[in-house]
Amino acid sequence: MSAPHKSAPKLPPRDDRDLLTPRPLIVKRGVNPHAPGSAHLKLGRTEILATVTLEDKPAPHMRGSKEGWLTAEYAMLPRATEDRQARERNLQNGRRHEIQRLLGRALRSSLDLRHFRNQTLYVDCDVLVADGGTRVASILAGHAALHDFCDHLINSGRLSEWPVVHNVGAISVGLVGDQLRVDLDYVEDKVARADLNVVATDTGMIIEVQGGAEEGPLTQTEYVQLLEAGTRAVQDIMVDLGRQLSAIQGL
Amino acid sequence: MSAPHKSAPKLPPRDDRDLLTPRPLIVKRGVNPHAPGSAHLKLGRTEILATVTLEDKPAPHMRGSKEGWLTAEYAMLPRATEDRQARERNLQNGRRHEIQRLLGRALRSSLDLRHFRNQTLYVDCDVLVADGGTRVASILAGHAALHDFCDHLINSGRLSEWPVVHNVGAISVGLVGDQLRVDLDYVEDKVARADLNVVATDTGMIIEVQGGAEEGPLTQTEYVQLLEAGTRAVQDIMVDLGRQLSAIQGL
Amino acid sequence: MSAPHKSAPKLPPRDDRDLLTPRPLIVKRGVNPHAPGSAHLKLGRTEILATVTLEDKPAPHMRGSKEGWLTAEYAMLPRATEDRQARERNLQNGRRHEIQRLLGRALRSSLDLRHFRNQTLYVDCDVLVADGGTRVASILAGHAALHDFCDHLINSGRLSEWPVVHNVGAISVGLVGDQLRVDLDYVEDKVARADLNVVATDTGMIIEVQGGAEEGPLTQTEYVQLLEAGTRAVQDIMVDLGRQLSAIQGL
Amino acid sequence: MSAPHKSAPKLPPRDDRDLLTPRPLIVKRGVNPHAPGSAHLKLGRTEILATVTLEDKPAPHMRGSKEGWLTAEYAMLPRATEDRQARERNLQNGRRHEIQRLLGRALRSSLDLRHFRNQTLYVDCDVLVADGGTRVASILAGHAALHDFCDHLINSGRLSEWPVVHNVGAISVGLVGDQLRVDLDYVEDKVARADLNVVATDTGMIIEVQGGAEEGPLTQTEYVQLLEAGTRAVQDIMVDLGRQLSAIQGL
Amino acid sequence: MSAPHKSAPKLPPRDDRDLLTPRPLIVKRGVNPHAPGSAHLKLGRTEILATVTLEDKPAPHMRGSKEGWLTAEYAMLPRATEDRQARERNLQNGRRHEIQRLLGRALRSSLDLRHFRNQTLYVDCDVLVADGGTRVASILAGHAALHDFCDHLINSGRLSEWPVVHNVGAISVGLVGDQLRVDLDYVEDKVARADLNVVATDTGMIIEVQGGAEEGPLTQTEYVQLLEAGTRAVQDIMVDLGRQLSAIQGL
Amino acid sequence: MSAPHKSAPKLPPRDDRDLLTPRPLIVKRGVNPHAPGSAHLKLGRTEILATVTLEDKPAPHMRGSKEGWLTAEYAMLPRATEDRQARERNLQNGRRHEIQRLLGRALRSSLDLRHFRNQTLYVDCDVLVADGGTRVASILAGHAALHDFCDHLINSGRLSEWPVVHNVGAISVGLVGDQLRVDLDYVEDKVARADLNVVATDTGMIIEVQGGAEEGPLTQTEYVQLLEAGTRAVQDIMVDLGRQLSAIQGL
Repeated sequence: MSAPHKSAPKLPPRDDRDLLTPRPLIVKRGVNPHAPGSAHLKLGRTEILATVTLEDKPAPHMRGSKEGWLTAEYAMLPRATEDRQARERNLQNGRRHEIQRLLGRALRSSLDLRHFRNQTLYVDCDVLVADGGTRVASILAGHAALHDFCDHLINSGRLSEWPVVHNVGAISVGLVGDQLRVDLDYVEDKVARADLNVVATDTGMIIEVQGGAEEGPLTQTEYVQLLEAGTRAVQDIMVDLGRQLSAIQGL
Repeated sequence: MSAPHKSAPKLPPRDDRDLLTPRPLIVKRGVNPHAPGSAHLKLGRTEILATVTLEDKPAPHMRGSKEGWLTAEYAMLPRATEDRQARERNLQNGRRHEIQRLLGRALRSSLDLRHFRNQTLYVDCDVLVADGGTRVASILAGHAALHDFCDHLINSGRLSEWPVVHNVGAISVGLVGDQLRVDLDYVEDKVARADLNVVATDTGMIIEVQGGAEEGPLTQTEYVQLLEAGTRAVQDIMVDLGRQLSAIQGL
Repeated sequence: MSAPHKSAPKLPPRDDRDLLTPRPLIVKRGVNPHAPGSAHLKLGRTEILATVTLEDKPAPHMRGSKEGWLTAEYAMLPRATEDRQARERNLQNGRRHEIQRLLGRALRSSLDLRHFRNQTLYVDCDVLVADGGTRVASILAGHAALHDFCDHLINSGRLSEWPVVHNVGAISVGLVGDQLRVDLDYVEDKVARADLNVVATDTGMIIEVQGGAEEGPLTQTEYVQLLEAGTRAVQDIMVDLGRQLSAIQGL
Repeated sequence: MSAPHKSAPKLPPRDDRDLLTPRPLIVKRGVNPHAPGSAHLKLGRTEILATVTLEDKPAPHMRGSKEGWLTAEYAMLPRATEDRQARERNLQNGRRHEIQRLLGRALRSSLDLRHFRNQTLYVDCDVLVADGGTRVASILAGHAALHDFCDHLINSGRLSEWPVVHNVGAISVGLVGDQLRVDLDYVEDKVARADLNVVATDTGMIIEVQGGAEEGPLTQTEYVQLLEAGTRAVQDIMVDLGRQLSAIQGL
Repeated sequence: MSAPHKSAPKLPPRDDRDLLTPRPLIVKRGVNPHAPGSAHLKLGRTEILATVTLEDKPAPHMRGSKEGWLTAEYAMLPRATEDRQARERNLQNGRRHEIQRLLGRALRSSLDLRHFRNQTLYVDCDVLVADGGTRVASILAGHAALHDFCDHLINSGRLSEWPVVHNVGAISVGLVGDQLRVDLDYVEDKVARADLNVVATDTGMIIEVQGGAEEGPLTQTEYVQLLEAGTRAVQDIMVDLGRQLSAIQGL
Repeated sequence: MSAPHKSAPKLPPRDDRDLLTPRPLIVKRGVNPHAPGSAHLKLGRTEILATVTLEDKPAPHMRGSKEGWLTAEYAMLPRATEDRQARERNLQNGRRHEIQRLLGRALRSSLDLRHFRNQTLYVDCDVLVADGGTRVASILAGHAALHDFCDHLINSGRLSEWPVVHNVGAISVGLVGDQLRVDLDYVEDKVARADLNVVATDTGMIIEVQGGAEEGPLTQTEYVQLLEAGTRAVQDIMVDLGRQLSAIQGL
């Protein structure tokens, strides 16, 4: 029993960053005048718009619970990608459902939802431009928009305690040939033989890992190396994100 | 037979513009790295992202014709509005269909479609923020994205002749009480007793007018005054838009 | 910058009516034994069946308002047209949504909706045969069915005041070559270079105008001429319609 | 084991017809100027509009077959019934699917489909008014529209042989209490304890029978009596229908 | 007027059963640990899984009634058939709607629904393997699952009276050439010139008959012979089913 | 910043298995007479039916590729769960999309798809009963059905080389309180504070891991312990599965 081998891909060069460094991150919050929390985030060329909505109605399965709920939605504009995709197809797409479930779990884990009893938070992450890593960029944008939202609640006196219990971020890590690379862009992602999305806290703890081998299975050692590199990169990027969120005062 | 009278609305004040002046317009083109034409446009707080896609396939009803076709789509992000709206509902919405048909007619009238025989152009206008006038802002953003697209075609030598035959823009005009106001924001729109969307050329000719009385019919004189004010305002705004489109070199 | 010119169309002849005269109108009311208001209307070969339904439930966005609401629906039978169209496609069709929004605005403007507080009126206009002008014929049929409905309310003592505040009708006007023609049939509509649907009252006031240039923009003068001819034709046709509605006693 | 007994219903009186006589039938053919075959049929107050469309494309499952196919569709206008029903719900309705499958089988059995090889016939039956018996009235209207269509084919020389091999009609029969009644209207149908739709030929042969007990099972004797009465009534009604179809020359 | 004749089909042989004998029946109840009633049933190779769900909510049209309601659903797994069928298409399928309406009427007629006032019973019949006769096998499986459910209610003391008022079963009968055959498998069904689904009680009374001629109409005599053979076969099969249901004690 | 603490759950007892042992596995292949590969699998009370379909048509995105494609579908029968779920909702469900994407990746990684050039494999996994672990049981059932399918291909001479390159299985592992438990049933899953689905080969290599913390993040050490336990358990279960697949000769 032997696996099929594809010819080894030409490894795409990296611009001016090293293999373990994510692409430049630029975040701006308070970008939507209607939403109580919002953020516009660029990770390289990937571009996300995130908004937070608070609805005074419990999610159906949380009625009677002491906690509120957070639902995340993820969608692409038709021309976020190289080829245009029809809106209706975009919405029914299985990949979209998979991603927004990941987003929801990641963002829910960051909040103490007892502060939102009988309420529902909607975090909408819309991809304006996609160039790899849209799901991890959406988690970062969602975190930024929630930060903006919580600031708003505290400043307006509607909440007295900071409800974010974990600063949750995410990054992708992959194996391109035998090179471990952090934060793959679309071209790198296409040729990677393994690809993990690591969702972790700024203290190096793990929320969730999604993904794995794309071509031939991984050894446990390879898997753990990817996990460790991803966790470290999330810690780095959360420092950068935190600094920008503190500095910027929106719109 | 006498009409119902609502109590006269308190006329909302205008910030620092006079009644016949549109809100500040800011446009940036080349904002999407994948699309051959794109623009980001703000008209006051209303904010539109437009992209152009060229497909090498005729629209079904244009097979065998000497001309190509242009289809426009219009959609709102869930939190473009004061209240969040579900994505699926947004897409099925009758208002959306009405608007994107208007967009399509407006933008088709601006091009010589014989240059795009057996091809289909998609112009996607996505509303990032809505504060009144989204349909006229979408026409302006669509025009800017088409301008960006045509520049691209000419510069790359794929077209030798400028295919835009009419510079088509649009503005809303309304009667608030007895005041004729140009480019109504959401608050003004709510209390207007008449509201026209005037689609016209930079030379003062009419492409289409949509709308009319919202509360009690209009005299023909009132209607013609609105039409004239709208046509004039479109001419003004097209000067501004044209200047910005010439100056800016994208991304 | 010069516009594309299509070869001038052969002007289709008119049967035995002059250019400013609508096609023969035949209306019959009380045609549906279940509905409290109904009408069957022919305008030339175009044929509409309209019914009125009164529901004792406010429309969601009118809860708590002093006024009721009127919703119009427009649909085609599969073989109303030269080619058969699938039912499901008919319902999702963007053109249908555009038209039923126009119908709704036109018919709402004719009633004092304070008489229908916490209620919703449905006016269903189904096209049995289409030969041009289905949207204006639907407005006329909807008006006739509402007239039938109001008669019913008054005669049964359920309403003491006539709730129709404006007799609202509609007609299409277009430019075929340089000829201004009123009430275009399908063949004329196909070759018209401009086409307006004028919704107006029997006193010559304007409710809404929809449409414009189909091939090259219009001068303001051309537009105003079309508007005036349309307004006049609506006044004429409303005299004819009113006479038939008074004379006929249904089923 | 004993069945539940409902209190015996008050038997609704019959207007001026006896128990075995169908309601008055009025049919008019050639009512749609676009369709090659059409009919408008009233059975009492029940009112059906049927059209025939011939498509030069085989149904997917008939590709390569020596025979064509006939598909029937059945739908109700929103206000065909006492209460208004939403269009979308009408289309998804299970009852509709059940009926249009019956219609399809009934009408297919009437034609020699070898005359329509590689073609598909659509028979659309739209219920304008429903007062019981809409499925049998639709079969009768569909038969009339097919008759109109075949006449058209023969007269225009496109077919040399009459393709109708069986004159197929239908009627409902039921037990109201212990009375056997033919062609039940809505009020009778509501209280019937058994209800059969008998589809048969003008020569007394059976195509299909649908239905049965509504309240407590039937003896075989009861069932056969219903079947015989229905078969006889179809023969009678086909004489009436045939006479009207021969006499009338459309629109 | 003469009917088209297909060449007489080669009559498929019967395995080791005679023409009036159904295929072997194997039923097992209590197969689903979550449902209060369930059954797995094989009729030849045709295989059905049926479950009963009791919901403490009246069906919308039964609010205020003294009786509850029973709804049946029928669906095929994608590979129940020779060719795989897409899930979404399976659900929208007209045939499915026709069948589940038949199931519902059959199973409702077997119960005294006064025992389930303000409640709704769902009987789900899923076809694991289809080889002809899926609708009659579903009625038999539904009956078995209801039997299991009622046993459960009685044994747990929640009901003191056996609510099954008629033991309702079903079988298909057909004419293959001139041979009357009972319980046709898929191969026989394909070539049958008539096909009835007889729903009847174990006492020989008729609930409903569905179907008829597939190729050329039937004489009344032929129809009645089919009916009688079907009724008799249902009585036989109900003896077999009853014996198995009494013997087996589930999972 | 401190996380919310829920009161420590009462740890549910394990029947008669230890914490690292999966539930009893019973598999039967060749259970569907129409499909070229099929399996019925029970893991404890969880019960899956899997079928393989081979279509001689490439998936749209694999046209021109040297490899075929494998698509997996996952669905629940309405009463697979404690509460009945509507079929339509089941199909649109985001969870379902997430799972079937995981299934697809897992099963694709097991085959050399160059043997299925220009073809598409469908693996349908239908959950008959759900009691935790349905996604890992579906991977096991899918693997078994593919094994059955490949046997069939080899035995019939249609393939000369065994196309399975990795024996891929899966198991869930979780932390219940501080206990690491393998193959959680529904009750355990509900109270677990972490839950991984480990997809791995019978040689201990990793295909994909899905999941993570459900309540408070995990340390890297905890995560790696779960990963190792899961990988080991997959190896064990694949020995059991392999033995049963070799022994059994289906239907």
